[in-house]
Amino acid sequence: MSEHQILFTLDILGTLTFALNGALTASRRVRLDIVGVLTLGVVTAVGGGMTRDVLLGDTPPDALKHWYYLATALGGAAIAWFIARPPRALARTIVVFDAIGLSVFAVAGAQKAVGLGLNPAPAILLGAITAVGGGTIRDVLIREVPSVLTSDLYAIPALIGAATAVLGGAAGLAPFPAAALGAILCFGIRMAGVRYRLQAPSHPPRAPEPPTSRQA
Amino acid sequence: MSEHQILFTLDILGTLTFALNGALTASRRVRLDIVGVLTLGVVTAVGGGMTRDVLLGDTPPDALKHWYYLATALGGAAIAWFIARPPRALARTIVVFDAIGLSVFAVAGAQKAVGLGLNPAPAILLGAITAVGGGTIRDVLIREVPSVLTSDLYAIPALIGAATAVLGGAAGLAPFPAAALGAILCFGIRMAGVRYRLQAPSHPPRAPEPPTSRQA
Amino acid sequence: MSEHQILFTLDILGTLTFALNGALTASRRVRLDIVGVLTLGVVTAVGGGMTRDVLLGDTPPDALKHWYYLATALGGAAIAWFIARPPRALARTIVVFDAIGLSVFAVAGAQKAVGLGLNPAPAILLGAITAVGGGTIRDVLIREVPSVLTSDLYAIPALIGAATAVLGGAAGLAPFPAAALGAILCFGIRMAGVRYRLQAPSHPPRAPEPPTSRQA
Repeated sequence: MSEHQILFTLDILGTLTFALNGALTASRRVRLDIVGVLTLGVVTAVGGGMTRDVLLGDTPPDALKHWYYLATALGGAAIAWFIARPPRALARTIVVFDAIGLSVFAVAGAQKAVGLGLNPAPAILLGAITAVGGGTIRDVLIREVPSVLTSDLYAIPALIGAATAVLGGAAGLAPFPAAALGAILCFGIRMAGVRYRLQAPSHPPRAPEPPTSRQA
Repeated sequence: MSEHQILFTLDILGTLTFALNGALTASRRVRLDIVGVLTLGVVTAVGGGMTRDVLLGDTPPDALKHWYYLATALGGAAIAWFIARPPRALARTIVVFDAIGLSVFAVAGAQKAVGLGLNPAPAILLGAITAVGGGTIRDVLIREVPSVLTSDLYAIPALIGAATAVLGGAAGLAPFPAAALGAILCFGIRMAGVRYRLQAPSHPPRAPEPPTSRQA
Repeated sequence: MSEHQILFTLDILGTLTFALNGALTASRRVRLDIVGVLTLGVVTAVGGGMTRDVLLGDTPPDALKHWYYLATALGGAAIAWFIARPPRALARTIVVFDAIGLSVFAVAGAQKAVGLGLNPAPAILLGAITAVGGGTIRDVLIREVPSVLTSDLYAIPALIGAATAVLGGAAGLAPFPAAALGAILCFGIRMAGVRYRLQAPSHPPRAPEPPTSRQA
């Protein structure tokens, strides 16, 4: 396969898995009808990229310009509707594919932002938004505190992968090797996080206190 | 009335009812001050169209370009503030006008997207977003799972109405008859859904299980 | 200092305090890891301005174009991570600086919208969105009903400050005096609200009733 075909295949694979996993996660937590399951699957898959494109001013977003994104996302969400409750072996496979989606989205989002003229720091941020934005919107819609804010190594590998791709490119690497390096790093850290249950640092819990100042 | 005047009148009527209904729904569920009631009414009325326009890259959105949208929405929300608790007969009327708003917004949103060059599938989706987006943003703000995801025939008639308008246009119908056909279909299905308490399909409830995999 | 330097200094000060206060508020209410604290601080600081820029079609938003916004916001959020629980004297100082941020953001956001050709009413609205949007997004992410909808004088001073700047400009005032007048008015009303615990009007509480009509 050519470099372009590899990236395209991974992009579609990521979209499919994000939709599948997003719809399954949502229906585990909230009772949804078929509209809800399909909507949340599609939102998980394309929400991050759409947020990126809106912020970049590249509208309509890719997910509305190219039919295969919506079709793939809808397909993944429909699979989630039919299997409803995945067997354990499938659940493990989904975690792996989800990590692939995370890696590809982070790297591709960051490189797109660089290509449209953004500086490294905001480009890295947009890469991470591409990767975690869809899941965050889904969590807000089903009234969960987005898991990316509270636990687990999920945003951090995305940021590292995006940074590798952006800084590798700035250091003279060609786009494809820079993307591959970033994606492999992101995937590795994410899977190590899953395997060893790594968490981002947080303060020890403390007794709740009444708010003393008001802030909107 | 000319075709244009009919569409304009329905658009304004839909905006007014969405604001009224949105503000009433919000204040039934959460204790709000006057800023909250007005904000949520306006958000319900113009949030869907603003989302559509941002995704289409047609900024500033119509609701910020034409004074009558904000004025109408604010008027509807102010009525909600004063009546606070509508008598039963009014509640029924609101359901009918809300279905009119749903129909007009779905059809007009989809036709606008086609006019700006989108393909049929994303145009239909943007029609539905125009129709249900405002209520969804309101529900997120008052911390409800958006009802469009969990119950009732609300998104489905919007999708059918938008699809009729888009595909009717593609099949050679002039814009106004295509819009009228789509809107009447949407309105009919929505009101039938209200009358016969139709629901979109959902899986039977099951015992909650602890999450086995983590997904952001 | 020149007028420009004054505005710039206040803008940076507002960004810093919004990030600090936003991150502290979020971590008081929800258990977050370091990614969550930094994200919510940055979102509080730049979310309002980014929403304004997306609605104005001025993309990428200022916060992604100029490095000092992200850097300042990240700095403020990092301070929040390290102090974690501010002493009482610091909490009071934060309230004052937060009111400065509110005032500067409302006035600057409204003037920017006017400069890009918006009419007075939507420009005033965008000023208020700049000022309260970041805190609202933060509250949605941590699953709180945005406090701006339920209590306190927060949106009202922002609207008054933005209106003063916009209408003062329309009445012939130069941009800087119009901005200064609006900001001082906003700051004064906000601080009076904090001091005397003023609330926007709301209906008296009543017994909850089951919803009688369905609205999405």
